[in-house]
Amino acid sequence: MAEANQLSLNTATVSRQWNLAQCVEGCLRHGFGGISPWRDKLQEAGVAEGARLIRQSGLGVSGLCRGGWYTAEGALTPAVLEDNRRAVDEAAAIGAACLVMVVGGLPKGSRDIDGAREIVTEGLARTLDYAREVGMPIALEPLHPMYAADRACVNTTGQALDICDRLGEGIGLALDVYHVWWDPELKAQIARAGRERLLAFHICDWLVPTRDLVLDRGMMGDGVIDIDGIRAAVEARGFDGLLEVEIFSDANWWERDPDEVLSIIVERGAALA
Amino acid sequence: MAEANQLSLNTATVSRQWNLAQCVEGCLRHGFGGISPWRDKLQEAGVAEGARLIRQSGLGVSGLCRGGWYTAEGALTPAVLEDNRRAVDEAAAIGAACLVMVVGGLPKGSRDIDGAREIVTEGLARTLDYAREVGMPIALEPLHPMYAADRACVNTTGQALDICDRLGEGIGLALDVYHVWWDPELKAQIARAGRERLLAFHICDWLVPTRDLVLDRGMMGDGVIDIDGIRAAVEARGFDGLLEVEIFSDANWWERDPDEVLSIIVERGAALA
Repeated sequence: MAEANQLSLNTATVSRQWNLAQCVEGCLRHGFGGISPWRDKLQEAGVAEGARLIRQSGLGVSGLCRGGWYTAEGALTPAVLEDNRRAVDEAAAIGAACLVMVVGGLPKGSRDIDGAREIVTEGLARTLDYAREVGMPIALEPLHPMYAADRACVNTTGQALDICDRLGEGIGLALDVYHVWWDPELKAQIARAGRERLLAFHICDWLVPTRDLVLDRGMMGDGVIDIDGIRAAVEARGFDGLLEVEIFSDANWWERDPDEVLSIIVERGAALA
Repeated sequence: MAEANQLSLNTATVSRQWNLAQCVEGCLRHGFGGISPWRDKLQEAGVAEGARLIRQSGLGVSGLCRGGWYTAEGALTPAVLEDNRRAVDEAAAIGAACLVMVVGGLPKGSRDIDGAREIVTEGLARTLDYAREVGMPIALEPLHPMYAADRACVNTTGQALDICDRLGEGIGLALDVYHVWWDPELKAQIARAGRERLLAFHICDWLVPTRDLVLDRGMMGDGVIDIDGIRAAVEARGFDGLLEVEIFSDANWWERDPDEVLSIIVERGAALA
């Protein structure tokens, strides 16, 4: 089982219902061990005020979501690089364990996914230079291949680790079971990653059927992902961070009373192996 | 470019509009080089009558879609194995270049994807025993990871080739750009496959945005897949089969006049590199 204090609430899970202050209060009310805000929630609160709220709460901060989007303007423009520096600063301001990176998909009008991957790798290198100065770990998140075109062209754990190996220290993985559960190489790549590269672990579930490519994630236990098995694999390598719950759910969880959502998360955490 | 006579019509592309006889006539009218029927269309026509129609047309037959579904009953039941023998027989009856295999996802209620993959591999081995007797090549189709749960737990070209290597001769790949375009290992795995394992090549496109996980495929040129690059890679290994066009499109192509659809396919073929 996972106790509530081993869980972290990714604010996306209740993004329609709660602002950052409400998320912090909700986490405390339900005994969560941590929080992982999205930048829009943090910026809405004001970064300084949001950081104060979070630090004062005593909650762990399993990550800040999200930097990246290196291909958004088709090349590494100053605006893209500057936004990622700001993301590093924001992650440091809230005391995040890492800055999670959703790297961006194909540039508009492009069919060159190899080229997109080169832009992304160079962008990560540039952000990493700064993140190392600040001491903020960069957590590269491989996204499900169904997002290769429009969200992230890093799509497997092995590919993400190849990039980490190319870039050296200070960068590792944010592994979300939703993105990686299907991968025949997953367990081998988790072993390859080892403790040093395992920076964040996100949980939710894959529903059958899945009715939307983005906004139909399931609550743990409602789908087909072997969460226990994947968790055991990351913990076997020494990962001891929080289990971060990140659920985008237009038609279900975003429509519910958020206190009910957090209660059910705690129940489902308790039901894990 | 691809001439019309290098193209094959997968009947799924006009499945709502045309029966098998109409598909055959349409292929002839538009100068297609071949056809690839789905089993439901073939069975609707009657296998013997459908086979007569196809053989009389002189069209090439790039494949029969589809055998597989080994996990449909949770284990390799006699019914599942028998249906696959029938599929082999049907493929032979129509003179298909191969029998395409969509292997099935997780058994109902299961989260054991490794177990599903073992069932599938054993099922393929059983069908292959029979297919070798008949001389019908088995074309294992890796499906996009978004179908791992409910359609096919073979999800990358590398994984499919690992299974082929385990099973030996008489089995290879049906590569559909829709399923594999995102894979960072794709080109390397195509090289690994070589001519002998490259049995079928399917084309369509990945739309941005994609509005449905199954029924929103795009026409070549309307999406982001580097079809030319992938085709060049398979042809560099010696593949000289037809380019099979398979588009599931609930809201667009299935709603159009099928003669218009075939005309546009021929135009888009001509626009390939």
